Amino acid sequence: MKKVRIGVIGIGAMGSIHAKYLFDGRIPHAELTAVCDSNTERLDWAKQSFGDKVQLFDNSDLFFASKSCDAVMIATRHYDHPILAIQSLKEGCHTLIEKPAGVYTKAVREMNKVAQKSDKVFGIMYNQRTSPLYQKVKDLVESGELGKLKRTIWIITDWYRPQSYYDAGEWRATWRGEGGGVLLNQDPHQLDLWQWICGMPKRVRSFMTFGKYRDIEVEDDVTTFVEYDHGATGLFVTSTGEAPGTNRLEVSGDRGKVVIENDKLTFWRLRVPESEFNREFRGGFGSPECWKCEIPIHGENAQHIGIIKDWINAILNGTELLAPGVEGINGLTISNAMHLSAWTDRWVDIPFDEDLFYKKLKERIDHSTFQKRGGNETLDVSGTY
Amino acid sequence: MKKVRIGVIGIGAMGSIHAKYLFDGRIPHAELTAVCDSNTERLDWAKQSFGDKVQLFDNSDLFFASKSCDAVMIATRHYDHPILAIQSLKEGCHTLIEKPAGVYTKAVREMNKVAQKSDKVFGIMYNQRTSPLYQKVKDLVESGELGKLKRTIWIITDWYRPQSYYDAGEWRATWRGEGGGVLLNQDPHQLDLWQWICGMPKRVRSFMTFGKYRDIEVEDDVTTFVEYDHGATGLFVTSTGEAPGTNRLEVSGDRGKVVIENDKLTFWRLRVPESEFNREFRGGFGSPECWKCEIPIHGENAQHIGIIKDWINAILNGTELLAPGVEGINGLTISNAMHLSAWTDRWVDIPFDEDLFYKKLKERIDHSTFQKRGGNETLDVSGTY
Repeated sequence: MKKVRIGVIGIGAMGSIHAKYLFDGRIPHAELTAVCDSNTERLDWAKQSFGDKVQLFDNSDLFFASKSCDAVMIATRHYDHPILAIQSLKEGCHTLIEKPAGVYTKAVREMNKVAQKSDKVFGIMYNQRTSPLYQKVKDLVESGELGKLKRTIWIITDWYRPQSYYDAGEWRATWRGEGGGVLLNQDPHQLDLWQWICGMPKRVRSFMTFGKYRDIEVEDDVTTFVEYDHGATGLFVTSTGEAPGTNRLEVSGDRGKVVIENDKLTFWRLRVPESEFNREFRGGFGSPECWKCEIPIHGENAQHIGIIKDWINAILNGTELLAPGVEGINGLTISNAMHLSAWTDRWVDIPFDEDLFYKKLKERIDHSTFQKRGGNETLDVSGTY
Repeated sequence: MKKVRIGVIGIGAMGSIHAKYLFDGRIPHAELTAVCDSNTERLDWAKQSFGDKVQLFDNSDLFFASKSCDAVMIATRHYDHPILAIQSLKEGCHTLIEKPAGVYTKAVREMNKVAQKSDKVFGIMYNQRTSPLYQKVKDLVESGELGKLKRTIWIITDWYRPQSYYDAGEWRATWRGEGGGVLLNQDPHQLDLWQWICGMPKRVRSFMTFGKYRDIEVEDDVTTFVEYDHGATGLFVTSTGEAPGTNRLEVSGDRGKVVIENDKLTFWRLRVPESEFNREFRGGFGSPECWKCEIPIHGENAQHIGIIKDWINAILNGTELLAPGVEGINGLTISNAMHLSAWTDRWVDIPFDEDLFYKKLKERIDHSTFQKRGGNETLDVSGTY
């Protein structure tokens, strides 16, 4: 079988890992043929790492003009994901973008329009969708084992980042450089999994602090309450300022609750649905019989490699993607709604006013007086996603 | 030593348990000398249970006029707690009220004024303050082991109550009868412990549903975000509609976090405070070394008997109360602020406008068109508090 020729745009922290997987032959039926980065130091790194076997470009127009790739991975800064994805799809390349899909949904919506018109395979690096744990929760919810949902609570406060993380890149944790903090950088996975498992909220009320724990201008602590169409409520609590923090997802429904914590899934299963018990019980105090079930989790979490393989498989064999690129807008919609709610100290309905969001983001970029003390290092991100 | 002569006003579900403890001699240096209830069935029960050794009254004026008690326990419906406590203290009786301190802080503030002028011992039945688990968390917070607080999250959704519970009493879960739902009936303990351990919030933003899970007019589901003076934030999530529900308290600070869940306390202790690590660390990705510490919990949870003994001890020996009656206003303040926030869909600062709260409560009482299907049973509450 012919190998898919892959190019990687953006070979910073994440992109260089992807390029190495490909170069090292860890993705069957795929080969690294080109990389592109505007930073000459990164191109020097690529030259040293890949020698003459991989073409190097310092701008995307030349990269695409070279026709050296059938498929492109985009691992640039967030703002450029939709811009480059649009260029890539229009150039006829299969495309896989890093998360988040972008910084603001207005741009991501344009990207999705292009993707929907394209016949190329468009994916997003939601590498936590490969987790058998979260796949199992999704299975329990979708199969009805949990019954009608009542509440979701995700406490995801274990994204600890010290000041030196923020100081390593001048673009980091600025409105201009990243367009947000913990929501845009650390939480895209959880925001995606949350909606993937529990559905999209219909309105959002969010509370944030900006630079509470670190010398940054964006959010480092977020608490959000949401309501769903299906009647349930939800909570999302996140921070980069806590250690050791917590990663605990609880989803409760008419037939019990599931909790994922410490990489373990437990299902407290009611013998009869709560609503049925409630209808029939006459004893005043009492509750439905509940079984604590340890749910087996099979399979490895293939993470980034899993997503890349899945994308290659879709390109070669027409399979369905585990993480379609157009779904990147969902988590970002929640993220943008959270920002808009915190900025305006109000409820935000979904869909929200995307022009208003963009205006308020732009104000923050334009009025930023924030001076970074940082430099421009490429951090080793192994094991941080 | 002379025994303290105790009267119990209100011998419904809880009051009858208290009266039996006393009658059975389970509280040293105390004896049951009188009970008072407007319900003749309950007085019949008392007659059968206690014979001629205990005086029976069907109204509080006669009860107090009899001078048959040195000390009075008040276990009536919530609205009457402050009214009867004021009468009791003014009659020169030591007084112990059931929780909550009342339904609205305006009335409780009057009660506290009388208590502060009185030389009698005034306590409140916060029987979860006797829990060695919560005492230990309070110890860890107050001694500085946890460092400056960052976040508190109490998920207390295991107060499951089926419809038949609400149907058992015509006053239950009505604005007129109880003045609230899960916050007034089930959560007073947690609201008290929360402020006892973590301090009072300075403002509150609350989200509630009223009769979402049950045919009742008051709240059965509450999510509240709070901010503290000391810079931390907090969450309180509660419901009577979930099974099996969760009871999990997490408190995180500069030196780690503690979690109480399943009657077990775990302290994730940082070797150096997070703020110190952050100041000195230069590595980009990294976090402070964290030790999972299993904290030993000694002693029994003496619950109601513990609180009554503590009150008798204070009466006879002048010791400090574990649960002073005047502190009942704290949890109720948070509870009232939560209601006011949900009713107005706004932030509520603490202290809040108590007249506005009372006005809005009164509107709900006056405009209630709710018809209870229920009767007037006295439920067996053993093991439900």
